[in-house]
Amino acid sequence: MTKPMGPIPAGFGSADGVLTIGGRNVVDLVREMGGTPLFVYDMGKVDAQIDHFRTLFPGIQLHYAIKANSYAPLLTHIAKQVDGLDVASAGEMRMALEAGMSPDRISFAGPGKRDEELKAAIDAGVTINLESEGEAARVLALGGKPRLAVRVNPDFEIKGSGMRMGGGAKPFGVDAERVPALVRTIIDAGADWRGFHIFAGSQSLSAEAIIEAQRATLDLAGALAEAVGEAPPLVNLGGGFGIPYVAGEAPLDVDSIGRALHDAMSQRHKLLADTAFAIELGRWLVGEAGVYLTRIVDRKVSHGKVFLVTDGGMHHQLAASGNFGQVVRRNFPIAIASRFAAPPEEEASIVGCLCTPLDRLADDVMIPRADVGDLVAVFLAGAYGLSASPQTFLGHPPAQEMVVGGALSA
Amino acid sequence: MTKPMGPIPAGFGSADGVLTIGGRNVVDLVREMGGTPLFVYDMGKVDAQIDHFRTLFPGIQLHYAIKANSYAPLLTHIAKQVDGLDVASAGEMRMALEAGMSPDRISFAGPGKRDEELKAAIDAGVTINLESEGEAARVLALGGKPRLAVRVNPDFEIKGSGMRMGGGAKPFGVDAERVPALVRTIIDAGADWRGFHIFAGSQSLSAEAIIEAQRATLDLAGALAEAVGEAPPLVNLGGGFGIPYVAGEAPLDVDSIGRALHDAMSQRHKLLADTAFAIELGRWLVGEAGVYLTRIVDRKVSHGKVFLVTDGGMHHQLAASGNFGQVVRRNFPIAIASRFAAPPEEEASIVGCLCTPLDRLADDVMIPRADVGDLVAVFLAGAYGLSASPQTFLGHPPAQEMVVGGALSA
Repeated sequence: MTKPMGPIPAGFGSADGVLTIGGRNVVDLVREMGGTPLFVYDMGKVDAQIDHFRTLFPGIQLHYAIKANSYAPLLTHIAKQVDGLDVASAGEMRMALEAGMSPDRISFAGPGKRDEELKAAIDAGVTINLESEGEAARVLALGGKPRLAVRVNPDFEIKGSGMRMGGGAKPFGVDAERVPALVRTIIDAGADWRGFHIFAGSQSLSAEAIIEAQRATLDLAGALAEAVGEAPPLVNLGGGFGIPYVAGEAPLDVDSIGRALHDAMSQRHKLLADTAFAIELGRWLVGEAGVYLTRIVDRKVSHGKVFLVTDGGMHHQLAASGNFGQVVRRNFPIAIASRFAAPPEEEASIVGCLCTPLDRLADDVMIPRADVGDLVAVFLAGAYGLSASPQTFLGHPPAQEMVVGGALSA
Repeated sequence: MTKPMGPIPAGFGSADGVLTIGGRNVVDLVREMGGTPLFVYDMGKVDAQIDHFRTLFPGIQLHYAIKANSYAPLLTHIAKQVDGLDVASAGEMRMALEAGMSPDRISFAGPGKRDEELKAAIDAGVTINLESEGEAARVLALGGKPRLAVRVNPDFEIKGSGMRMGGGAKPFGVDAERVPALVRTIIDAGADWRGFHIFAGSQSLSAEAIIEAQRATLDLAGALAEAVGEAPPLVNLGGGFGIPYVAGEAPLDVDSIGRALHDAMSQRHKLLADTAFAIELGRWLVGEAGVYLTRIVDRKVSHGKVFLVTDGGMHHQLAASGNFGQVVRRNFPIAIASRFAAPPEEEASIVGCLCTPLDRLADDVMIPRADVGDLVAVFLAGAYGLSASPQTFLGHPPAQEMVVGGALSA
């Protein structure tokens, strides 16, 4: 029985029947790079998301969470256009600095920061988002005048979000009721207090849920500021903006969120009048911009079912195989890139080259008839793709990456 | 509410209250290697599994599927003791050759072999397990006198196995009814036909299911040989021997399988009288021998729950986080290695250092009270561990690996 796929994101075209990314024919791109597997990131699509954000959220800072994709050319391109980069390890901190971002615009969150990472962040002048009182004590023991924000574990979460990062007992941040005391401690110790980081969830497609969480976040920031008795220089409101991956999911109504946040900001606590606010986005900025291209190396039939076997797979794009936080595997959008304009005419399953039944890219999808040599495009590969996959598994060659398009690339 | 853990495998000890692996104190091992995270593989435990196999399966070849763990010192150690290595890519083939295995004892299976991989295997004299008629045509077009076996997609599978690799439409192998014609084709083309590879499933803990599958495999091999009209030099019976990971799972009764296979062999088809038989094992040989050691970098409390945050996580041991084929996450066995002899006294969750809620090593387990600096041992890390994990995710440092113990290491 044919299974549905998620929607192919807008903005991809075709020329001579072949998929184009950023106006470039993918057959040409693969030839240029010497083969598959290949990740292509359309910086024009990233720029369009950034522009969309700027229009909808005037006066709100835009931060990029580089864990979504830290490929250097992409990161450098984005760093020029956003107000901050959020990193989750000393390794990512170095990437952010190498991308040209000023240290005072980098913040470092993450529950397991080692002492040498804390030291590296202090030395670089990067803001450390404290995850616990113990971490605060370790930072302060290292001396200097560290830039410190406090990550808050709020009592609420983005309802129905793909990944819950707040609400109840969590390994992230400090429970809200203990935050004021911690802030006083770090201020009294002579550190440079940078504000709050309040993250309530990620990968939500419900504008209503995000609006509610943002209102609650503003209220919480106001209450915490009052309890501290001082205004936070910056409040990171978190992110949570999702993108549709599978059938039945619809794009997030970001416009509504923009309007609602504008209203909520106008009613914010008076102590927050001069506070800067940031939204931290990863997946929403880059997810739809990436395409994973892989080539069909075998076409076979087993018990009447067609299998197309590719030279890529879960070692490069784990999420598409259904093994990255998903409970039930569902098809990401996928296409025969070298026959992008052809009508669907047969049901087939597309699998990776790994010798494991886990390595599936599409189950029972209707696609044009494809054969050995055809290119497969797996969409939504721009976030949590290559870097979040087990690249050395089974000893296959690494994937290549490239950026195309984007006004600043020239 | 306290959640159970899987059973800690036998054979680990303690000295001065600290976990020992192969008789070595893990605090010393970590010091020797300069820190955590660290994978330690006890070759004594691997050797014991090999000895156990030899006792139970006299006359049956033992092959190691290196996808389970291809760490070079471990692989070299195993290569000296087994009859064959099974590889799943040209990269793994090179590892097997570098481990000193003779090419005529290496077989290369995998559904997506690229032409350059097929060429490399022919040049090296490695046996190619053909996955389809199309692959056979591509191999034969490359010329030479390739060593070729045919991977069979059987009409049965190991019932209830963790991963089903046979039965119904599958991307692996050639449907049984088409195998005789394919074998005739490759023999007529002048290739060196090496036999059959029949793989019906993996990670099964049911001796009954494996016994039934092995009987069916022998019957199928006999029927295929008769249809071909020639005896296969080798029949790879597959593997499927599982190990218990989570609470409620019991070790596989391998002894019963040995007795049953002995009986089944005595009744095998007369055409198979001089055929060699192999069992291909990965996880069962190495899984229990490996321990992932990571250090606690933070101890925190959120809403009354204790979280121990480590310097390792899902980027090194994805399976323990529940994101490697599992539908529901359940706790692998885990212990505070630096307090291995201490009684459990508090409920805690152990999480990795990655800034994602997916990065969990143990949920709500009863363990000794542990603090920053203590070492955590995640057991069952010998198979599908580091190489099957997204090592570059979030830019944390790589894990180290080492072998200890084992008679041949001296």
